[in-house]
Amino acid sequence: MDPKKIETEGNSDPNQSGRVYHLALDIGGSLAKLVYFTKKDDGYVHGEERISPQEALAKSKGSRSYPVVKGRLNFMRFETSKINDLLEFIKSEKLHLGGSRQQDVPGNQNMFIKATGGGAYKYADLFKERLGISLDKEDEMDCLVAGANFLLKVVPEEAFTYLDEQKQFVQIDHNDLYPYLLVNIGSGVSMIKVEGAGKFERVSGTSIGGGTFWGLGRLLTKCKSFDELLEMSYRGNNRVIDMLVGDIYGGTDYSKIGLASTAIASSFGKAISDNKKIEDYNPEDIARSLLRMISNNIGQISYLNALRFGLKRIFFGGFFIRSHPFTMDTISVAVNYWSKGEAKAMFLRHEGFLGAVGAFMSSDKHGLEELLAPGNMSCAVDSRHDSVNGELNGDESIECRLYAS
Amino acid sequence: MDPKKIETEGNSDPNQSGRVYHLALDIGGSLAKLVYFTKKDDGYVHGEERISPQEALAKSKGSRSYPVVKGRLNFMRFETSKINDLLEFIKSEKLHLGGSRQQDVPGNQNMFIKATGGGAYKYADLFKERLGISLDKEDEMDCLVAGANFLLKVVPEEAFTYLDEQKQFVQIDHNDLYPYLLVNIGSGVSMIKVEGAGKFERVSGTSIGGGTFWGLGRLLTKCKSFDELLEMSYRGNNRVIDMLVGDIYGGTDYSKIGLASTAIASSFGKAISDNKKIEDYNPEDIARSLLRMISNNIGQISYLNALRFGLKRIFFGGFFIRSHPFTMDTISVAVNYWSKGEAKAMFLRHEGFLGAVGAFMSSDKHGLEELLAPGNMSCAVDSRHDSVNGELNGDESIECRLYAS
Repeated sequence: MDPKKIETEGNSDPNQSGRVYHLALDIGGSLAKLVYFTKKDDGYVHGEERISPQEALAKSKGSRSYPVVKGRLNFMRFETSKINDLLEFIKSEKLHLGGSRQQDVPGNQNMFIKATGGGAYKYADLFKERLGISLDKEDEMDCLVAGANFLLKVVPEEAFTYLDEQKQFVQIDHNDLYPYLLVNIGSGVSMIKVEGAGKFERVSGTSIGGGTFWGLGRLLTKCKSFDELLEMSYRGNNRVIDMLVGDIYGGTDYSKIGLASTAIASSFGKAISDNKKIEDYNPEDIARSLLRMISNNIGQISYLNALRFGLKRIFFGGFFIRSHPFTMDTISVAVNYWSKGEAKAMFLRHEGFLGAVGAFMSSDKHGLEELLAPGNMSCAVDSRHDSVNGELNGDESIECRLYAS
Repeated sequence: MDPKKIETEGNSDPNQSGRVYHLALDIGGSLAKLVYFTKKDDGYVHGEERISPQEALAKSKGSRSYPVVKGRLNFMRFETSKINDLLEFIKSEKLHLGGSRQQDVPGNQNMFIKATGGGAYKYADLFKERLGISLDKEDEMDCLVAGANFLLKVVPEEAFTYLDEQKQFVQIDHNDLYPYLLVNIGSGVSMIKVEGAGKFERVSGTSIGGGTFWGLGRLLTKCKSFDELLEMSYRGNNRVIDMLVGDIYGGTDYSKIGLASTAIASSFGKAISDNKKIEDYNPEDIARSLLRMISNNIGQISYLNALRFGLKRIFFGGFFIRSHPFTMDTISVAVNYWSKGEAKAMFLRHEGFLGAVGAFMSSDKHGLEELLAPGNMSCAVDSRHDSVNGELNGDESIECRLYAS
C-alpha cells in the first residue's frame, strides 16, 4: 500500500474525538469483537514530562525517544447476527470519529477502520452505507497471531493453566515464547503453528467449535443465548446421555486398554436406547454432554497437531471458552490425557479478542499517527482494570501506554 | 487356559446340530453381531475326496494334510437394546446347540460360546439364565484385529476405496498388509495400530461415533432407527444448517489458507442465528449435517494418528459405515484432504463384523474341534454369497471351507 495523506478527526473536530483515538474490529461468524483505546485526559507523556499532542509529534520527529499516549484498551462484543447493535454502539459513542480519514481526492473523504474476520468482507458495504466507514481488511490469521503474541508478551498474567479447578498464571519468558500452537475456538476452530512474530502456518482446524455448541445447543435446549447455554451446563450431568465404558461393560472398566468405566465411550450414545424424547431430558444434562463432547474433541485434535510439530505449549483462545471452568478443565484434561502429561493447555485472559487486538496493533498508519512517529504502533501495559479479584473476565480493560516503536 | 475335555453337541445329539457347527458374538453398545457357520450337507472333504467327520478327524491326526468342512459363514445383527431378539433367534434356530459343552465336573455341563464386546460381560448372566450358555469372553481389541486380518487376508474383494462415488476393490498383498491403522466405528471409535498377527496397540479413539450419530439424530429428528436416519441423510442438504466459510466471508473463499467458500466452517453453526426451532428444520438436512460432521471428524483424527505412526493405509470398519456412500465419501475426502493425498481410506465389505469374526476365529477349542485337528481354526473362502451385483451389503454370507492349520 502506498503511504496515504492522513487528516485526523482529532485535528478537524477535536471536541468530538477527544477521548477515543483508535479502534479495530474482528467480525466472526457468531460474534463481533471491538477493541478501542480511550485516552486519559492528561494522557500525553514524554519521559516523565506531560506534553501536548503537538509537542509529542514534534518531539517524536526530532528525537529517537518515543511519544506516549496513556489510556485504556477497552474490549466489547456483539452477536454478529445483531450487527446493527454494533453499528449503533459505534455511532452513539462516536467511536468511528476516532478512526482516520483518507483524502485521496478532494471531496472524497474516506474513514478507515481496521477490521478482520469474515465479517470484514461480508459487512463492508453495510459499514460504508450506514457510517461512511471503509473497513480496512486485515487477514484473520495474521491478526490472531499478532494479537496472541502481543497479549502474551506485553500483558502480565495474561496466560494461565487450569486443571483440577486450579488456575495458575504462567510467566511467559519473552525469549522463550516460540514455538507454540495457537488454537482459536470461534464458530469454527483454527489451529496455527506459531514460530515467531509474523511467522506462522494454519496447520489444522475443525468445524466442531463454538458455533456447533451454540447451534446444536439452541436446537436441543431452546436456550436463548450462548451464555445461558454455558450457565446450564454448569448444573448438568453428562452421564445421563453419554454412553460410558461402564454402560457397555456392565459397570466394569475396560482396564486392559486403560479405559475407566466412567470414560465416555459414545457421546450422546445413551439416547439411542432410551425411549425418551428430547423433552424428557434435562436441558442442563444435554448442555453438559455437548460441552464435554466438543471441548474434549478440540483438546484431542489440538494435542495431535502439537505432537506432529513437536510443540509443548498449546494456547487456547476464542470466544467459545469464556473463562468457563468446566470447558477449560475438559480441554486441559484431554490434552493431559492424550499427551500423557507431555503437553500443556494454556488459556488467555483476553481469549476472545485475539483477532481484534491483532487488527488494532496492525495500524501503522491510521488513527494514532498524528500522535506517534511513523512506524509500527506498540503498547506497554501499566495494569489491567481488574474485575472482582480472581474472577476471569475477558472483557476487562487494560490500562496502557501506546507508543511508536 | 488349561485344555478342557470337550464333548460336542454334534456327538451327543446329531439330529439337532447337524447344520450349525459354530457361532460367535460381538455385543457392542448399540449392536450385537452374530457370526455362525452352517455346514453343507455334503460338507466334509479331504483333498478331492468326500469323507465323514470321523474320517476327517482320523485323517487329520494321522497326516499333515487338513480336514476340511465346507459350508457358509453367516452374518446377522441385532440392536443391543433388543437383546431378547438375539436370544430368541439363537434359541429358535438352535444355534447354541452348535456350541460346545464342557464337562468339568460330572453333572455340571457348561455350554460355551465365544463372545466379545462389552456386552459379553454385561449380558453374561442373561445368557446363562435364559439359554444355559456361558459366554467365553475374548478381548475386544484382539478380536477386532483378528477379524480384520482374517477378512483382509482370506476374503477376495474384501477391501475397497470409495472416492467421487467410485468404489474400487483393492488387491491386498498378504505379505504387504502390515502396518495399517484400523479404525473401528461402533458406538464409539477405536483406532488401532496393527503391525502383525496379534501385534497391535490401541493408539487413539473418539467418543464421537456411531452412537453420537444415532443418539443426537434420534433427539433431533425423531427417527425410529439408525437405518432410517441414514436414509434421511441421503436426501438432506447440510448447507442449510452448517455455517460455511462463504457464510462468514460474504460468499467468497478464504483463499489465502485454502478454504473454499463451500467448506464447513462450523457444523450446525447456522442454527445460532436463524430464528428457527427444531421443527422448522428439515430432518433430512439435520441428518446430513450430523453425518458429515461425524464422518469428517473421524477421518481427520484417523489421519492424524496414521501420520503419527507413518501408516499409509487406514481401514475403516464398524457398523456406523453400513456401506453408506456419503459416509464413505466424507471419510475418504477428509483423509485425502488432510493428508494431501498421502494416506488412503479403505473400507471393508464385512465392516460391522470384525469383532465377531475375530471371536469366531479365536475358537481353537470349541465347537469344531471334533472335526478338526487341534490347533487354530482357519478358513478358506470359496466365494461370497453376493447380493445384487455391485451392491455392498455387509450381511452377505461367505461360502468357505473351515480347516485346522
